[in-house]
Amino acid sequence: MITTASIIGTGNVAAHLAALLNCAGVHIDMVVGRDITRARLLANSVEAVAFDNLRNCVFNSQLLIISVSDDAYSEVISQLPQPITPIVVHTSGSVAMNIFESKVQNFGVFYPLQTFSTEKQVSLNHVPVCLEASSDNVYAELEALAIRLSSDVYKINSYQRQQIHIAAVFGCNFVNFLYCSAKELLQKSNLPFELLHPLILETARKAIEVGPENAQTGPAKRGDVNIIDKHHLLIDDPELKALYLLLSNQILNKYDS
Amino acid sequence: MITTASIIGTGNVAAHLAALLNCAGVHIDMVVGRDITRARLLANSVEAVAFDNLRNCVFNSQLLIISVSDDAYSEVISQLPQPITPIVVHTSGSVAMNIFESKVQNFGVFYPLQTFSTEKQVSLNHVPVCLEASSDNVYAELEALAIRLSSDVYKINSYQRQQIHIAAVFGCNFVNFLYCSAKELLQKSNLPFELLHPLILETARKAIEVGPENAQTGPAKRGDVNIIDKHHLLIDDPELKALYLLLSNQILNKYDS
Repeated sequence: MITTASIIGTGNVAAHLAALLNCAGVHIDMVVGRDITRARLLANSVEAVAFDNLRNCVFNSQLLIISVSDDAYSEVISQLPQPITPIVVHTSGSVAMNIFESKVQNFGVFYPLQTFSTEKQVSLNHVPVCLEASSDNVYAELEALAIRLSSDVYKINSYQRQQIHIAAVFGCNFVNFLYCSAKELLQKSNLPFELLHPLILETARKAIEVGPENAQTGPAKRGDVNIIDKHHLLIDDPELKALYLLLSNQILNKYDS
Repeated sequence: MITTASIIGTGNVAAHLAALLNCAGVHIDMVVGRDITRARLLANSVEAVAFDNLRNCVFNSQLLIISVSDDAYSEVISQLPQPITPIVVHTSGSVAMNIFESKVQNFGVFYPLQTFSTEKQVSLNHVPVCLEASSDNVYAELEALAIRLSSDVYKINSYQRQQIHIAAVFGCNFVNFLYCSAKELLQKSNLPFELLHPLILETARKAIEVGPENAQTGPAKRGDVNIIDKHHLLIDDPELKALYLLLSNQILNKYDS
């Protein structure tokens, strides 16, 4: 059973995983981050030791979690001290597992499908954790760890994980951008975003309860081109205008009978 | 106090309002709909009488709610029996209140800002109800009725209501369409939509708790153009590709520093 881990990276995912693992009884030994202030802050929060580079690090933990931006993985992995004994995992939706192949013996992916921000603590309780591993033994170790954090653990290969990541960009990142757009539109008329809170929650809940394909409503769904033209004229911002047109046309096409 | 109402229209808003008003102690006298089967179905559910046209209708209720598609309002209002004694309201986000001016003495708008589907019952408890009225007296009557259904009643003029409607199209209709897109992407890889449920709920909750402008995450927010290019190549469907590009570019532009 994994009881010790170290972490390379100090971003949102790294910080949340450190806290959640610590709560689940996994001792965090070391936190490595280029910005030593951030590394110390995170390390102190879980009683770990902070380092600002990999040169002098000796990883004696059972697990090493690398959670950095996608384009930094290659460089970080190339700098890992050799030989490296822990199981090494990354937390990215879009980086293939084989990035570890030439440098690490036992490796895998630990991808929690959630949106993490510094502003808000989240539990992984019912959050899907997508696992991939270099061997059945490594998978068993990662699975035993993951079920201590979440009830929903999935075996997902690198191709599937990438598809999930793209779907998550649509269902989370793009959705949030539309919330921002809605808020801007309201603010221009001095109306509070709070007006939309119940609608936003109900839209999310309904998509989950009855499926989004059964929950579509609105002018484009009804084929009401008069309203679409009227709205289009009323939107000043060219970017919001472009979004309104593209999304309305796609909905019109989809439901055109 | 309004204790009796009649309804013209049998759509989702009409059906939900009939049920909710009935529960709140307002007797529904008549339901008028072109499709008599639908009109009877709705009328029977609230012990009202069904009619399939306006010719023989005499409205003795205190309130007449017209809830039809936006482009049908003019025709319905022109057919109202004269003189008409009830307060007459419509339920549309985009139709100006003055559509009633030449035909009705006491009129207004009763616009509940929620998404209604036949599949799912909803309460108006904390749902914003946007009211507008032809006089202070009519407003007082509508307000007294609205607060029996919802804790959140707003005085909103026709211009503001139209802006709210556009914002709701972004925050609800377009958001649901993105949920549909995410589901399609997952299904193409034989992955269940359930994977995204926690992410969808957390994204909605986070936008409400910390504001969507503080909750943006994802490749475009981070300026990670490598991932954006990779995702763009991986998406087969041309419509999803176009959506991915437009939304990613708008997020890139917004957070470009």
